[in-house]
Amino acid sequence: MSADGEPTRTPARSQVEMTQMVLPGQTNMHGTAFGGQILAWIDIAAAVAAERHACGPTVTAAFDEVQFVRGVRLGQVLVLRARVNWVGETSMEVGVRVTGEHRGTTFHATSAYTTFVAIDERGKPKPVPPLTLETDEDRRRWREGAARAEQRQARRKG
Amino acid sequence: MSADGEPTRTPARSQVEMTQMVLPGQTNMHGTAFGGQILAWIDIAAAVAAERHACGPTVTAAFDEVQFVRGVRLGQVLVLRARVNWVGETSMEVGVRVTGEHRGTTFHATSAYTTFVAIDERGKPKPVPPLTLETDEDRRRWREGAARAEQRQARRKG
Amino acid sequence: MSADGEPTRTPARSQVEMTQMVLPGQTNMHGTAFGGQILAWIDIAAAVAAERHACGPTVTAAFDEVQFVRGVRLGQVLVLRARVNWVGETSMEVGVRVTGEHRGTTFHATSAYTTFVAIDERGKPKPVPPLTLETDEDRRRWREGAARAEQRQARRKG
Amino acid sequence: MSADGEPTRTPARSQVEMTQMVLPGQTNMHGTAFGGQILAWIDIAAAVAAERHACGPTVTAAFDEVQFVRGVRLGQVLVLRARVNWVGETSMEVGVRVTGEHRGTTFHATSAYTTFVAIDERGKPKPVPPLTLETDEDRRRWREGAARAEQRQARRKG
Amino acid sequence: MSADGEPTRTPARSQVEMTQMVLPGQTNMHGTAFGGQILAWIDIAAAVAAERHACGPTVTAAFDEVQFVRGVRLGQVLVLRARVNWVGETSMEVGVRVTGEHRGTTFHATSAYTTFVAIDERGKPKPVPPLTLETDEDRRRWREGAARAEQRQARRKG
Amino acid sequence: MSADGEPTRTPARSQVEMTQMVLPGQTNMHGTAFGGQILAWIDIAAAVAAERHACGPTVTAAFDEVQFVRGVRLGQVLVLRARVNWVGETSMEVGVRVTGEHRGTTFHATSAYTTFVAIDERGKPKPVPPLTLETDEDRRRWREGAARAEQRQARRKG
Repeated sequence: MSADGEPTRTPARSQVEMTQMVLPGQTNMHGTAFGGQILAWIDIAAAVAAERHACGPTVTAAFDEVQFVRGVRLGQVLVLRARVNWVGETSMEVGVRVTGEHRGTTFHATSAYTTFVAIDERGKPKPVPPLTLETDEDRRRWREGAARAEQRQARRKG
Repeated sequence: MSADGEPTRTPARSQVEMTQMVLPGQTNMHGTAFGGQILAWIDIAAAVAAERHACGPTVTAAFDEVQFVRGVRLGQVLVLRARVNWVGETSMEVGVRVTGEHRGTTFHATSAYTTFVAIDERGKPKPVPPLTLETDEDRRRWREGAARAEQRQARRKG
Repeated sequence: MSADGEPTRTPARSQVEMTQMVLPGQTNMHGTAFGGQILAWIDIAAAVAAERHACGPTVTAAFDEVQFVRGVRLGQVLVLRARVNWVGETSMEVGVRVTGEHRGTTFHATSAYTTFVAIDERGKPKPVPPLTLETDEDRRRWREGAARAEQRQARRKG
Repeated sequence: MSADGEPTRTPARSQVEMTQMVLPGQTNMHGTAFGGQILAWIDIAAAVAAERHACGPTVTAAFDEVQFVRGVRLGQVLVLRARVNWVGETSMEVGVRVTGEHRGTTFHATSAYTTFVAIDERGKPKPVPPLTLETDEDRRRWREGAARAEQRQARRKG
Repeated sequence: MSADGEPTRTPARSQVEMTQMVLPGQTNMHGTAFGGQILAWIDIAAAVAAERHACGPTVTAAFDEVQFVRGVRLGQVLVLRARVNWVGETSMEVGVRVTGEHRGTTFHATSAYTTFVAIDERGKPKPVPPLTLETDEDRRRWREGAARAEQRQARRKG
Repeated sequence: MSADGEPTRTPARSQVEMTQMVLPGQTNMHGTAFGGQILAWIDIAAAVAAERHACGPTVTAAFDEVQFVRGVRLGQVLVLRARVNWVGETSMEVGVRVTGEHRGTTFHATSAYTTFVAIDERGKPKPVPPLTLETDEDRRRWREGAARAEQRQARRKG
């Protein structure tokens, strides 16, 4: 809690952990969770982190490049960890790391940088609160997130 | 890691956090997550904790009484935390606490004690590894879990 | 129909039969309907019986202990039978028995006692009509339901 | 049970009752259960009746004309009743009547005559047991079903 | 575009192509897309064509007889093509042809003639715009659709 | 068909059109199709195009950056068009354009470049057939796809 009674909005405060088990209805014909299902879970995990930080509704604005490093099979577990890295005026970058898990061993399944925009009741963008950086890790993620935000901006104009 | 190279199977090691956002397809006509959907999520969160501890497949054997303390509305968030409390020869008690969350405030939605049984390839019950108790909290949960296991046993015979 | 033109609200009048076939999207990795899916179906079958009796909306208040006696496999059939056992001022106990079925043989899969509360337009509890007991079976279920309601009350206070 | 120990396969023995509540995920943008969802439930209810009669797997061969008489709204209940009307060598006609229900009043939502074919392990059609007709109603349904089967045959050739 | 600035409403203008891949959650226990799922997809494809022609909401009024010619297996592809054949005062006939596809070969899976009714904001039937026939094929489909509409009318009265 | 009897594998031959209507179960709490659902549909549309070209199974390897340009509301229609732009040794770039549609007007909702890898029975990458370029548009897409493939390769190493 900061001096003025507002909660201190650190990345740790809004981070999200979402665990899913791969069930038959979520697999493709190769017996692994299909790519689109994983992206759908990433979207929800990131949305919760964004809405925790913004303390209100948000919409998905963009997904950066996503590489599917390794498939997650039927009956295996996915753990998604989402964390706000950087905030702009009305947008936030939320990083999501997806870890697969099978009988005690874990592996990197995929990762994504997503961008969310806070919206008001009429669906218009509204300002997001500043992000309080506590640790060196927080500051490193901020710098990298700011660089990616700049590149995204450039790509959109390009 | 214990002296013989085996992982130390504490409740903390296998505990699960599962975050869900209540979407329109999961609500009843009152605009809250319907009871059965919450029970389905509890089942999955508990199964992941049980399988992490058992390091293999398990099946749901029982749910103790579940009270729905407060509804969770469309667009709100549920956080389910599952933790192995007690283990018997082939069964485990997994407690799950479900917290609702809306714009910075959290509330107790419901809780459940579930029982899972470890199974082998042919679907037969198989022994589960012992649970290593680290903290006073772990020991308190074990004692209470053991008492509930005894009561369940008594009710089944009764 | 009673003398005053109101329908006679017996357990037989509001009872529900729900048949489901276990499809691939509803199974776990052992090829059986996963526990949470069965609980979700129990919740819906019980809600229909409760709403038929109350003649209006209800919400799930509690599930008593549920034991999964035997799994129901892919392609097998589940028949859920829900029946109002007992009514209090604003709450009702609905018992649900789930029978599995495979090529002419049937087996007990699981059972549950659920509690539902009638609600008005603002979501507040409202009185439920009395239950008319017709048969000895109705009266036996009522007595047992009343005893369970008392125990639930005691456990909540305890 | 017939004299030779085989079950007597009457329409009453294999008939199915399936109750569903219309949830938000099953509605169209007009707030009623969407047509395709109702057809999917009809298909499952009819398949269970067909498989009960055939005592083994079946596949859907045809749906006769279906008219949607009246929509079923969010939160309302559907009761589907499926009954084997007529059997040929490897095929069966299953009639399904769908009743909507809202606060004590019921209404005809839709009906369908479906045709199912019994199959063996390799998916090839196999003979179905004869249907034992008990009541005048059974005999009337058989005559009408046989007439429809003949018309279907004629339409396929035509 | 016609002389008065209105779009020319030909069958080609409103026709729909919908591609689906059969995923595990959509199959029955024989490993093929279950009949009800295919009917649900047909309903949606036809609804889009009807709403494109009517330029507003519609509801499903009827499905003519549907024969499932050949099953579509897990991992195979379905292509549904929907086209407005005929329009009456407030109703439209939409034909849907479903083609299965597997590694370069295609096959006829099933077909359906569906009837949709245009509705206004209160859910009442409202007039649909005329259908502009461009090709001989359009005119042949119209004649056949008109004949089927007459037969449907006769069956309803009969 | 080419001289040696093999089909000519042009982008037009394998392109996919997938139409979806946004139903309540696919929306977020703002009444629009949620981002993850759209990504799931993109994944399936692209997979069908990739498998048509490769004439066998494929897996999703990557999604390039995706920007959600405009939301698609409940009851509106999405049309996804997927087309193979470029093929490498075992991978293919599939571009997907998603158009929203509402009562006669259409709008750009989002687009994605996805990468798929052809796999053999053991799940190992296998060579994909060459892509035959017919039109100037085909050649332009190939050049741009090849440039993106090179950038992806560089980013992975970087």
